[in-house]
Amino acid sequence: MLGVLGGMGALATVDFLGKLVRSTPAMCDQDHIPMIVRFAPSIPDRTAAILEKGPDPLPGLREAAVSLEKAGATSIAIPCNTAHFWHPALQAQTSVPILHIADAVVDALPQHCFRNVRIGLLATSGTLSAGIYQERLARGGFVCRLPNEKRQTEIMRAIRFVKAGQLAASAVIMQEQLEDLLEGGCHYVVMACTEIPLALTSCGADYKRFLIDSTEALVGACLKLHLSRTAQQVY
Amino acid sequence: MLGVLGGMGALATVDFLGKLVRSTPAMCDQDHIPMIVRFAPSIPDRTAAILEKGPDPLPGLREAAVSLEKAGATSIAIPCNTAHFWHPALQAQTSVPILHIADAVVDALPQHCFRNVRIGLLATSGTLSAGIYQERLARGGFVCRLPNEKRQTEIMRAIRFVKAGQLAASAVIMQEQLEDLLEGGCHYVVMACTEIPLALTSCGADYKRFLIDSTEALVGACLKLHLSRTAQQVY
Repeated sequence: MLGVLGGMGALATVDFLGKLVRSTPAMCDQDHIPMIVRFAPSIPDRTAAILEKGPDPLPGLREAAVSLEKAGATSIAIPCNTAHFWHPALQAQTSVPILHIADAVVDALPQHCFRNVRIGLLATSGTLSAGIYQERLARGGFVCRLPNEKRQTEIMRAIRFVKAGQLAASAVIMQEQLEDLLEGGCHYVVMACTEIPLALTSCGADYKRFLIDSTEALVGACLKLHLSRTAQQVY
Repeated sequence: MLGVLGGMGALATVDFLGKLVRSTPAMCDQDHIPMIVRFAPSIPDRTAAILEKGPDPLPGLREAAVSLEKAGATSIAIPCNTAHFWHPALQAQTSVPILHIADAVVDALPQHCFRNVRIGLLATSGTLSAGIYQERLARGGFVCRLPNEKRQTEIMRAIRFVKAGQLAASAVIMQEQLEDLLEGGCHYVVMACTEIPLALTSCGADYKRFLIDSTEALVGACLKLHLSRTAQQVY
């Protein structure tokens, strides 16, 4: 059974579940993946904690992960990029494998025969400050590009708009930041915060081929694990 | 914490969660409702069991409800109308209150000063055969209208299309059945199966004011309970 440690934010978790259900090869209810999902909204703000401006989310994350394990989860997915700062600490406390969203994104990036493919990152300030993506992209041979400080402030504002349910207001800001990264020479832009696909879902087809959705990448990793376990009849 | 006994079907549960999250007054992650959600897809087909053509879903429903209670649920919602045939049996085995989707629908029906308001039911054959809605609507002073047998067969086909992810194919059939109920004199039609709003979401604004969405009614009941408990600081 797949455990989902969610609610960071709530709409991003619903987006993850929707993408997972729609991607599952199923002809009836019984073909779908068994899941246990925690919406744990009281977990403190992850970016604030990484920037040393807020309380520690680790106790809340740990409690939720343990409750998923107790409920029978045999793997755990966390549809929140910033929370992955605590991935090593969480994984150290459970024998249930916790998928890593940034590993899933790097696996999902298109393979190219040329070097120096430039990847822009749209993410929280916490994710960027914690370096969750930078090292992984470098190891994969990619060149990482980040927005400047002023633009990063705008991106955080747009992410908060999604958390408040104001998707249209978020989309206007986010599309401008996406265009800046593409005009600056990025070949692809990773939506490395699970709120961002909710804002950019309305952007035109012209942009879609440049965007890598971390939520979809995590869905892909979950499906791959589920299908391999089903083949081995682990469930 | 709200427990959701879901996965019947998977997409309908995602629809319920999305409507609940979007309806919650929230400005940030921490404002949302804490939830534990079970996607229990292996629970056998409810309609088949009611029509005595398939295995009993009660053991699976009971196991899922107990696991939600153990995980800390203080109330339980089941976003599947047909499963409510087993509502009394489930409620008898747990002290956690289980909301009733049909009660939520009757509460959500517009109040009228005239008698004999006719309500059409779009539901599974299991829900209709079990009489989950008929008695409640009669008690509320409403007159209930059901599709004929041939049309009911079409409705079941359309519900199965949703469970297989084929929403467009379902919508064509479902809209025809909706129109038939309205042309037959129904003032309102209850989408009394949580797959149906997924099919009819694409139908025009002209129909929307005649439709009562059982998923939204259950969301309303959950929100009402959550907000009253928050006011009493039960969480």
